[in-house]
Amino acid sequence: MVKISEIGEKEIVKYILSKISAPETSLIGIGDDAIDFIEKKERIVLSVDMLVFSTDVPKGMSLKQVGWKAITSTASDLASKGAKPLYFMTSIGLPRSLKFEEFKELWKGMNEAAKFYNGKIIAGDTNEAKEIIIDVIGIGIAKKILSRKGAKEGDIIAVTGLFGKSSSGLKILLEGIRKEGFKELINSALNPRAKIIEGQILANSGYASACIDSSDGLALSLYELAEASKVGIYITHPPIDKLVEKFSRKYDFSLFDLVFYGGEEYELIVTIKPEGWKYVKKLFEKNNKKIIKIGNVVNRNEGISVYWENKRRALEKRGWIHFK
Amino acid sequence: MVKISEIGEKEIVKYILSKISAPETSLIGIGDDAIDFIEKKERIVLSVDMLVFSTDVPKGMSLKQVGWKAITSTASDLASKGAKPLYFMTSIGLPRSLKFEEFKELWKGMNEAAKFYNGKIIAGDTNEAKEIIIDVIGIGIAKKILSRKGAKEGDIIAVTGLFGKSSSGLKILLEGIRKEGFKELINSALNPRAKIIEGQILANSGYASACIDSSDGLALSLYELAEASKVGIYITHPPIDKLVEKFSRKYDFSLFDLVFYGGEEYELIVTIKPEGWKYVKKLFEKNNKKIIKIGNVVNRNEGISVYWENKRRALEKRGWIHFK
Repeated sequence: MVKISEIGEKEIVKYILSKISAPETSLIGIGDDAIDFIEKKERIVLSVDMLVFSTDVPKGMSLKQVGWKAITSTASDLASKGAKPLYFMTSIGLPRSLKFEEFKELWKGMNEAAKFYNGKIIAGDTNEAKEIIIDVIGIGIAKKILSRKGAKEGDIIAVTGLFGKSSSGLKILLEGIRKEGFKELINSALNPRAKIIEGQILANSGYASACIDSSDGLALSLYELAEASKVGIYITHPPIDKLVEKFSRKYDFSLFDLVFYGGEEYELIVTIKPEGWKYVKKLFEKNNKKIIKIGNVVNRNEGISVYWENKRRALEKRGWIHFK
Repeated sequence: MVKISEIGEKEIVKYILSKISAPETSLIGIGDDAIDFIEKKERIVLSVDMLVFSTDVPKGMSLKQVGWKAITSTASDLASKGAKPLYFMTSIGLPRSLKFEEFKELWKGMNEAAKFYNGKIIAGDTNEAKEIIIDVIGIGIAKKILSRKGAKEGDIIAVTGLFGKSSSGLKILLEGIRKEGFKELINSALNPRAKIIEGQILANSGYASACIDSSDGLALSLYELAEASKVGIYITHPPIDKLVEKFSRKYDFSLFDLVFYGGEEYELIVTIKPEGWKYVKKLFEKNNKKIIKIGNVVNRNEGISVYWENKRRALEKRGWIHFK
């Protein structure tokens, strides 16, 4: 297989240009120094997220899955603000030794993911780097918008899925645990999906007061939301996945840690005005999507706590932090 | 001095958040998963450019200058399309061993540059990486827009400055040549500036038919423009800087190579309808900016050639290409 050092940047750019297309309103077109579009009716929402191979890619993840993950991280940020993805742009750093076939796998994942989220890749920049780096910029639109601020005492706190699957899947991959019976957990770690529709339902319902995605882990994301909104949180019903419970018992891992201190689950954590809960729940049912009540927004002085093993305990602030 | 591995990501994010501000129309605000804005009157132009330390930073460049360069590369892409920078977003990869003071120098350069181009940094993402990576996304607006396509046979080809200074400055830095008398060349290599005003004058004049920035070198950029516009180019008056000529004579470097095969000069290369040349020239004079006629757009079959040492010679297609 041909190395990218043999075919050079121009061939890679040519490949990328054959796979992307410009926004319909663009005058500049693809392959230029910049890209333009007109978007008059709605609010534009931008997000950016960098995937670094050495820190963000678990053992056992294929290059296609890496491409999916790069787009998914950025799509999830848009989702958590209630935005609908329109376009993605990307800056890619590649090591010289990478095979062109490997690059095409990476790109395939990115392209599939962009389409899955109803967006399209409109521009790219390729660079030589010591490891694979994929920076993805998401450009979305929204009529109504969610932020991390806005949660109020008395609001219901809910999530779009159960927790612990990705962190359990990562443990299986990293520690070489037998996969039998737990393939769903590995799938969660290798093929995460952003909750785009859920974010839009929440924003447009008019009852969501704050929202964040859980990519830094449930605990840390709860802290981020609570700090931005200046509130406390009491998790009365931890969102424990049944299979994760079985996995933790079988291998004697802390269920609490798997649920609260995992990461990269890309679920949404949202606060909802109590009078709107039934309506929001109905909207989700109608769209065949999950929304699970896990607790309540409380006074800031109460901090963040969890009802666990028959008592209320403080939730420690820790999770994945770069550099440390 | 404190290493970033000692203070951790959160402190760096806190530092960045204290230095950035949201678009005025933003509801989300800074420090969230994404950022929003409303821009109803004009066309939105986006560009992205990744700076990778090991390939894009010459010996002798300070971290503040690296920050400036990262923003400048992206600003130059906006400039070449006639867009006015509004906002910048950035994804930063940092090695654990970097000192916090060093990071602050880097950021200072980015922030100064963003302000210099009348834009502001509105969002960022920090990551751990093996080397310094700065991906910068530029968000600009434009009433009229320029692309690489659109040059027509008979158009005048012009540039916003003379060439060879950056490539000469790089030679001085890399080969340890005495700096006396040539400090301006080093300055050119270490402190490049994007031609924002020039791009807007050109776009709004109504007479520019195509434009590209020269960051890949004059020769390669001419090829890009010619290929996109399906034309040929004849450079009758090569834009040779006087000091570069002196430098090339003194140290016996090829003047032709310094002028055509340097890179990262961030000048604009533009084609102008002949009937508008006088008007465009006057606009530039009024704004105290340089525009220099260097040749003409010719038929595609003539290829790209240069009048050099009393004869017309073909311009070879080479320049900085990643991976090769």
